[in-house]
Amino acid sequence: MRFENAISIEDPADPRLAPYASIRERDLVGRQGRFIVEGEVTLRLMLSPASRFRAGSILLAPERLPGFTDLIAALPEPPPVYCASKAVMGAVAGFPMHRGVLALGLSGEPPAPGSLIPPAPAPAVVLGLVGLTNHDNVGGLFRNAAAFGADAVLLDDATCDPLYRKAIRVSAGAALTMPFARTASPQALLGLAARHDLVRLAMTPGAEGDIADAALPSRSLVLLGSEGPGLPPQLMAECKKIRIGMAAGFDSLNVATAGAIALHHLLRRRRGV
Amino acid sequence: MRFENAISIEDPADPRLAPYASIRERDLVGRQGRFIVEGEVTLRLMLSPASRFRAGSILLAPERLPGFTDLIAALPEPPPVYCASKAVMGAVAGFPMHRGVLALGLSGEPPAPGSLIPPAPAPAVVLGLVGLTNHDNVGGLFRNAAAFGADAVLLDDATCDPLYRKAIRVSAGAALTMPFARTASPQALLGLAARHDLVRLAMTPGAEGDIADAALPSRSLVLLGSEGPGLPPQLMAECKKIRIGMAAGFDSLNVATAGAIALHHLLRRRRGV
Repeated sequence: MRFENAISIEDPADPRLAPYASIRERDLVGRQGRFIVEGEVTLRLMLSPASRFRAGSILLAPERLPGFTDLIAALPEPPPVYCASKAVMGAVAGFPMHRGVLALGLSGEPPAPGSLIPPAPAPAVVLGLVGLTNHDNVGGLFRNAAAFGADAVLLDDATCDPLYRKAIRVSAGAALTMPFARTASPQALLGLAARHDLVRLAMTPGAEGDIADAALPSRSLVLLGSEGPGLPPQLMAECKKIRIGMAAGFDSLNVATAGAIALHHLLRRRRGV
Repeated sequence: MRFENAISIEDPADPRLAPYASIRERDLVGRQGRFIVEGEVTLRLMLSPASRFRAGSILLAPERLPGFTDLIAALPEPPPVYCASKAVMGAVAGFPMHRGVLALGLSGEPPAPGSLIPPAPAPAVVLGLVGLTNHDNVGGLFRNAAAFGADAVLLDDATCDPLYRKAIRVSAGAALTMPFARTASPQALLGLAARHDLVRLAMTPGAEGDIADAALPSRSLVLLGSEGPGLPPQLMAECKKIRIGMAAGFDSLNVATAGAIALHHLLRRRRGV
């Protein structure tokens, strides 16, 4: 793809820019299989072979175009590339576009959750997120899942969308690369674990033995609930419980941090240490 | 203290409310030894024996007062308690005060950094923050320092204020309880470590051996730098390097998360596991 293939747009009302309109409000209601990617690092990742998603279109400030042309030209099917000034981009998006880099991602057909779990008896470490409605926490958990090499992330029906703009950013792009799928309910998550021979692990201060010393299973589903209520008791009852040892009197850890500590231990073997 | 000791205020311009004026703007420039605490959980913590700071005054919506009267009455020197409607509180603070709970904290005289380090040969784990300008990260590190029982947090001159409103909130109140002090420079941090027999530890992907397997010193200063640039090379050169083992191709961890993993390992011994 050469520079002259980009399509210049000067009218914020141009229908080709409609998917980029009022980004903040529409973030909240979902986008029918489309999502917004913002910023250079994230867009580079979406255009790389590591990405699980294709770009439906790209919208760049003219001065940002040269930095992307090689990458776009290398794609098997380059998407339309629109060029608009940052002022026009801001008018469309509804807030200032300092970075001048936007793209529309296509969610595609969601994978079947079971298809993301490595078949037994191979080792497997899968995160299971239950009722996590905070985009920072979900983004942080995707980042940690990628950092330590988890196989997949499974979400229950109440967990928020990892492809929400803020979650992608906090994930350092891992939401675009880490395999994930949604299940119908927390119970469906447990059922999947049973059918795929995954030991269900839950972190709780009440468990015996620190995770650093526990014998850890080679196949596990690590269940994480929201910080206040934690996992529902009926779910907790069906899990093997492990503890992240903490100081007396302050058993409060951010859920993404708790996930990082669990993953660091569970995936040690795989890193060969 | 009885309910009738609270002072009702109806005028947003009342000079006794001046310290609560335009909270957001003034957050950015500091408050001459004073800081703002917001919300019930944080205020309860500041009024508890665990707090390192006293309240200069308390400002509550009338309906929130009964929940605090016992706690305030138990203080050796109860501060003035002002009562104002949420509308008046919002007019003073400059944004809606949904929770109706504010207080003014007094920073007091800062402790000498060396006074916070347990004397040798006792075990010691101290965090050293270098150039961390993100309040979420600093708040998160305080939370993790408290969760795992670190002895203190030392900040260089460029690290942001842990008593900034958002940092306190993200720390889950740990900024009010965890001993901390500021040094004049990163070099001063290193000098302190040398004088107090602390091994300087730095996390870097290039080090040999995972922290989970490394022989860890009983006295350490764990240095953490900002996520992009990390620790300056001249600082790194003076540290013992350890690695948090990660998956190939994604050596990116949030700095507060990296700190949590380091602290979890360094403080295992002290937890008796």
